Amino acid sequence: MTTPYKRLDKDQAAVLLVDHQAGLLSLVRDIEPDKFKNNVLALADLARYFKLPTILTTSFEDGPNGPLVPGLQQAFPDAPYIARPGQINAWDNEDFVKAIEATGKKQLIIAGVVTEVCVAFPALSAIEAGYDVFVVTDASGTFNEITRHSAWDRMSSAGAQLMTWFGLACELHRDWRNDIEGLGTLFSNHIPDYRNLMTSYAKLTSGK
Amino acid sequence: MTTPYKRLDKDQAAVLLVDHQAGLLSLVRDIEPDKFKNNVLALADLARYFKLPTILTTSFEDGPNGPLVPGLQQAFPDAPYIARPGQINAWDNEDFVKAIEATGKKQLIIAGVVTEVCVAFPALSAIEAGYDVFVVTDASGTFNEITRHSAWDRMSSAGAQLMTWFGLACELHRDWRNDIEGLGTLFSNHIPDYRNLMTSYAKLTSGK
Amino acid sequence: MTTPYKRLDKDQAAVLLVDHQAGLLSLVRDIEPDKFKNNVLALADLARYFKLPTILTTSFEDGPNGPLVPGLQQAFPDAPYIARPGQINAWDNEDFVKAIEATGKKQLIIAGVVTEVCVAFPALSAIEAGYDVFVVTDASGTFNEITRHSAWDRMSSAGAQLMTWFGLACELHRDWRNDIEGLGTLFSNHIPDYRNLMTSYAKLTSGK
Amino acid sequence: MTTPYKRLDKDQAAVLLVDHQAGLLSLVRDIEPDKFKNNVLALADLARYFKLPTILTTSFEDGPNGPLVPGLQQAFPDAPYIARPGQINAWDNEDFVKAIEATGKKQLIIAGVVTEVCVAFPALSAIEAGYDVFVVTDASGTFNEITRHSAWDRMSSAGAQLMTWFGLACELHRDWRNDIEGLGTLFSNHIPDYRNLMTSYAKLTSGK
Amino acid sequence: MTTPYKRLDKDQAAVLLVDHQAGLLSLVRDIEPDKFKNNVLALADLARYFKLPTILTTSFEDGPNGPLVPGLQQAFPDAPYIARPGQINAWDNEDFVKAIEATGKKQLIIAGVVTEVCVAFPALSAIEAGYDVFVVTDASGTFNEITRHSAWDRMSSAGAQLMTWFGLACELHRDWRNDIEGLGTLFSNHIPDYRNLMTSYAKLTSGK
Amino acid sequence: MTTPYKRLDKDQAAVLLVDHQAGLLSLVRDIEPDKFKNNVLALADLARYFKLPTILTTSFEDGPNGPLVPGLQQAFPDAPYIARPGQINAWDNEDFVKAIEATGKKQLIIAGVVTEVCVAFPALSAIEAGYDVFVVTDASGTFNEITRHSAWDRMSSAGAQLMTWFGLACELHRDWRNDIEGLGTLFSNHIPDYRNLMTSYAKLTSGK
Amino acid sequence: MTTPYKRLDKDQAAVLLVDHQAGLLSLVRDIEPDKFKNNVLALADLARYFKLPTILTTSFEDGPNGPLVPGLQQAFPDAPYIARPGQINAWDNEDFVKAIEATGKKQLIIAGVVTEVCVAFPALSAIEAGYDVFVVTDASGTFNEITRHSAWDRMSSAGAQLMTWFGLACELHRDWRNDIEGLGTLFSNHIPDYRNLMTSYAKLTSGK
Amino acid sequence: MTTPYKRLDKDQAAVLLVDHQAGLLSLVRDIEPDKFKNNVLALADLARYFKLPTILTTSFEDGPNGPLVPGLQQAFPDAPYIARPGQINAWDNEDFVKAIEATGKKQLIIAGVVTEVCVAFPALSAIEAGYDVFVVTDASGTFNEITRHSAWDRMSSAGAQLMTWFGLACELHRDWRNDIEGLGTLFSNHIPDYRNLMTSYAKLTSGK
Repeated sequence: MTTPYKRLDKDQAAVLLVDHQAGLLSLVRDIEPDKFKNNVLALADLARYFKLPTILTTSFEDGPNGPLVPGLQQAFPDAPYIARPGQINAWDNEDFVKAIEATGKKQLIIAGVVTEVCVAFPALSAIEAGYDVFVVTDASGTFNEITRHSAWDRMSSAGAQLMTWFGLACELHRDWRNDIEGLGTLFSNHIPDYRNLMTSYAKLTSGK
Repeated sequence: MTTPYKRLDKDQAAVLLVDHQAGLLSLVRDIEPDKFKNNVLALADLARYFKLPTILTTSFEDGPNGPLVPGLQQAFPDAPYIARPGQINAWDNEDFVKAIEATGKKQLIIAGVVTEVCVAFPALSAIEAGYDVFVVTDASGTFNEITRHSAWDRMSSAGAQLMTWFGLACELHRDWRNDIEGLGTLFSNHIPDYRNLMTSYAKLTSGK
Repeated sequence: MTTPYKRLDKDQAAVLLVDHQAGLLSLVRDIEPDKFKNNVLALADLARYFKLPTILTTSFEDGPNGPLVPGLQQAFPDAPYIARPGQINAWDNEDFVKAIEATGKKQLIIAGVVTEVCVAFPALSAIEAGYDVFVVTDASGTFNEITRHSAWDRMSSAGAQLMTWFGLACELHRDWRNDIEGLGTLFSNHIPDYRNLMTSYAKLTSGK
Repeated sequence: MTTPYKRLDKDQAAVLLVDHQAGLLSLVRDIEPDKFKNNVLALADLARYFKLPTILTTSFEDGPNGPLVPGLQQAFPDAPYIARPGQINAWDNEDFVKAIEATGKKQLIIAGVVTEVCVAFPALSAIEAGYDVFVVTDASGTFNEITRHSAWDRMSSAGAQLMTWFGLACELHRDWRNDIEGLGTLFSNHIPDYRNLMTSYAKLTSGK
Repeated sequence: MTTPYKRLDKDQAAVLLVDHQAGLLSLVRDIEPDKFKNNVLALADLARYFKLPTILTTSFEDGPNGPLVPGLQQAFPDAPYIARPGQINAWDNEDFVKAIEATGKKQLIIAGVVTEVCVAFPALSAIEAGYDVFVVTDASGTFNEITRHSAWDRMSSAGAQLMTWFGLACELHRDWRNDIEGLGTLFSNHIPDYRNLMTSYAKLTSGK
Repeated sequence: MTTPYKRLDKDQAAVLLVDHQAGLLSLVRDIEPDKFKNNVLALADLARYFKLPTILTTSFEDGPNGPLVPGLQQAFPDAPYIARPGQINAWDNEDFVKAIEATGKKQLIIAGVVTEVCVAFPALSAIEAGYDVFVVTDASGTFNEITRHSAWDRMSSAGAQLMTWFGLACELHRDWRNDIEGLGTLFSNHIPDYRNLMTSYAKLTSGK
Repeated sequence: MTTPYKRLDKDQAAVLLVDHQAGLLSLVRDIEPDKFKNNVLALADLARYFKLPTILTTSFEDGPNGPLVPGLQQAFPDAPYIARPGQINAWDNEDFVKAIEATGKKQLIIAGVVTEVCVAFPALSAIEAGYDVFVVTDASGTFNEITRHSAWDRMSSAGAQLMTWFGLACELHRDWRNDIEGLGTLFSNHIPDYRNLMTSYAKLTSGK
Repeated sequence: MTTPYKRLDKDQAAVLLVDHQAGLLSLVRDIEPDKFKNNVLALADLARYFKLPTILTTSFEDGPNGPLVPGLQQAFPDAPYIARPGQINAWDNEDFVKAIEATGKKQLIIAGVVTEVCVAFPALSAIEAGYDVFVVTDASGTFNEITRHSAWDRMSSAGAQLMTWFGLACELHRDWRNDIEGLGTLFSNHIPDYRNLMTSYAKLTSGK
């Protein structure tokens, strides 16, 4: 009677990055800027690392919302890039939905700005359309904790699974033996505490 | 098995503003006064902008609870205004329910003071009566975070959807192309960060 | 498919006060002592005001847990008082369950110290036994926010409704006209902001 | 041996508003945007109300820092307005210092963005130059609490007095009898709780 | 070169209670209402217990600021009571200063609402006039932590000593042997944790 | 329609301690180190006290993740100890699952580092495999509150029960009379406030 | 003109532990119990490690305040132990001052419960008597942050130096080469993160 | 009588980076890891940008404290690097002091881990030796806010100035016209909000 375990599978998953735009980021105040920047780039790095089909979309990027944050577009030079002419819910944009369908994936990993709109709306629509939805809570930002927790409650009640980028990476990778160095590098680049562990370890085991 | 996506539709929605009274607001301590004032006025503005039928109700406004906060009644000069003679749950007041029925709408957007009483009671009654209920969490206030989260849990468990005024506006508007200036003005008036984005943008693109 | 609205009815409700003991209160650190003392006494006052059958129970009151906090036993001189010889879940004590059955009520309002044990265990047992359970979250205390929210999640998932003493009083009273002065006094005694409203109001309307 | 009481005198005071620019405000994260916007406008209103000579200055307003926030320049159409060509410490700009000297005032009220730079630098320079300095802490914003408290400590150690806009207004006004309505309006416009008090009061004393 | 130890002496001290008015208390948001009410009443109780000369003053009590909070005037029926006609700094009111001079005391204990105005202004004036000033920080309230800490910094820099009601009581009492029961009762009435200690102790030592 | 009460039974329960490793603990920032160390050791002590079959597992303990934290392995010298060669979800390791099956228990108590991976993954897999899962939230740690609450939501939605070590001990023990001293010692060793209660009690009743 | 650097010298320092009693600790709510217990025991351990003369004192230990917390008296079996008959400021007790004078030390390290009384009063008296005073802020506890910071301000203004147990240990030790293992053990026993570092290090360098 | 304005001058300043080691960083819990990493690297970048003589020192880097964090040593390949054999206060190491003297600078900018030891000890010694000391509070980390604020109070009382890296950069640069691009790049690399401003600005002004 409860939600069954929907386990992420790197062969079944696609990533949707919705409206991580330079202007809109000034609205994000439920996560510190340094941490948020890191989380978004970590998500981008893991999408590339696991070769997940990734779709970028923006809202009014020529207006005050501004262009994509630096690094995001460059990370996915060949990804579908949908500059929506006006639809607030990205799912209302046909090109966006077609791009998703073209991936052939049924597990959608979604992050964006702001959480209760740019993430929640397509997440709810995707669930309605029969997809399994995984929200990346720490790569999604919004005004404050009231807006965040209202959005989480709405999405969770609809069956979305709330995850964070580190959990995503671990669930997709399954076994360190698939590639120790690759996953280690991803973590080292985006988790200062982990990098410190690796730095101390490397020194002690390097024969000094 | 989970709550389906109930999407707000501006042709199906009505707004209920319950007990935003000058005295009662001194009880609200889970949101800062400046922010709360802004959120309530933003909700009023969006109700007018989308021409949603709006119903005002108060509890004992001649006693310590005080009159409606400044600006609310003026915003809706023609709205049904039910000064309840004693019912705590507004839904127990026949005039209030009749006013709702008269709108013909099945999606009810509710905000009020205090959350666990003036919002939760009619929200639960409305769900029981078959309405879809959308609680505006950031235009509803209460004593502290324990009372807030207890109320949220009770309403969410009963099937209410927790939203905030910005999410409401976006879900109702659907597409910026319906009216860029109108929605932009609403946001500019109630989101200082957004106003700043627009201010900088305007200067840079004005040929100055 | 969601939890239906179980509305409190003063003719159907009984109150269970579990282990509000002088020693155990030193464990409570998720609510400030002044506020917690006030909430517990407010709950006692409302139980008396609405003449709800009330049952007191303690755990090892001759040991370090200590006696009931001052005022609680005096408030209910004729109430069943079950000093449990050892059962941690009060529901495992036959006398406690018999005392509840003797009230003939099916709505149980439960508060106690600590939340995840003295409240959650009988709450879960009562639900299993077919009762409607209303947890008074702000008259229940525990070690910290992790223990609180874990307990809330467990009880809410099992169907308990999370409420606070103010919401209880309002839902039980239904209509101010039933007794304005009585409810007003209850609020004035336990909500400083409300007392201030009434004080200013009284001065202005007293003919000065 | 301690700092003597330097009491603000409306005939001795001038106001310096430093770099409240639309872009720079996105850096301010130690105060909520709604509250900060209100505080800055309240300071502007009180400067006008007390007819204090006011000086505006900006840093690189044609670049990413952006223009003054809406309302500030309009509030002081005749005020000296120094768009600094590059000096970070406004005191290093001769025009700025001359504008201050031209006021003939020795008490300087300073607010700006960000606190540890745009406020602290001219505040320290002004003290060195023999002025009495009053920092408006709640109309000055910065990155976080570490930067705020470091800046406060540096300025306080140098002899600056830390005040907030409400304290400023009260110290400048001295006696309500000088103008009850004027000061009341200032407070009503910028303190929602105060407006609520006045609203309830007005209703009760208006003969309804 | 640092501030010397100014030790409170119950024969040298007077208490000034400034503007604890029912309306103004709705402005206080840096302390929880239950705790603040308790702190103010504890201060009143200790003033009476140590028979300290106490002076009450209010600002515009017939307007929105409202009358003194319940209990305060009754606690000091014979105390000088100065309803100021308009002076914001109580020290600007001659009657207030004369009442202080009439006590013959040189140690002034000050509390009030709001901290940065009603407390800080007379505190600074009193220091200037040669008094030793002890601010009761937890019986003084204000809008938020920024206003609180700015006010503390200003008063501390001027030589005021920041204390709380419990410290005051202990420093005035000097030795429990002067009256164990009296001080114990004061603490029991205003510190729930202390009452619990005493309750458990009493039970264990009562021969039960 | 809600989750039924799954009550822990000491004859049905086993404990899984997942990746409490010295290096990984530097990643845990949602609980203070002193408290977290205490919670983990308290869980170990209760597992031994109730003689619950306990299984230890680690991930890459020869690398930067480091060895088990001091005391854990020593506490369970005969417990199955699975140093996983690479599987991130412990449930993907056959030896781990076999060790669980060998216990013959159907109630699994799980704690680990980090919550959203080392706890959530095997918890979800265990539920899928038909076990009743009890997550020890306060003996599980992770990066921050966003990761914690996302993980709690995912596990709770899947039917896991969120508990804390104190609640576990109480639910397993059922009745103090089973062994007062044993449980009392467990609490005294891991709850400073409880130890203080017992210390004061012992002194008062020791005939001193 | 500022406070000169008073550097702790293990040959010049004595430790005063004031009223760390089992009952009084229930009043301490500005530090978590697990951390506070650890800090007090760490201070005791360092006092023994550096062989600093240590003086214990209690207030009314046969009453509700209770006996010393477990471990403290045992740690210093030969230390002067002054059970004060009533003096609240320990400095008012002649035996206490004589015990200090008997040590011949001029640097006094003080910790106790509660900060603004049991620590601040003797600290201020000691400064007045010409001693250099070092307050151990994290081994001293009180009701809340308002009482803490008021007490800190009063002591700091009088010339006390605010330190924490870790800083004390480092300043007293001067050079790791004096005893690496001894200091390392002290840190390992009281800083979980440090123990984890040492555990990982030991494993990697032990040649396993 | 207050601390005069000591203004940083890039020709007079040297930077001391004390014990930013991979192991020690696991002790830092008063700043989030992502932000702290950024602050330390920002400080390193500004030291290089302004060509300030920089001195690196470590404590026991072959033990659990670990090597310098990645990037720091590489940033200053030619800087004096003092691996201290045991002195806890870096100032007790002759080579360290000589390296400082060799720079010929009298303004010392100090950051390190942990604040109350590795920063405070050399800061106090440097002041005693006649240097002007500027502590970089946000590039220095420690266990918690109690240790941080105790350390700040001790250093500030001794005359140290508390600054943050952004303030340092601005005070050293004096005037944007000295090098707009260089300073802009420094800010863009280390302040995500600033980078977003520049990104939006660049797009709008690029003729795109």
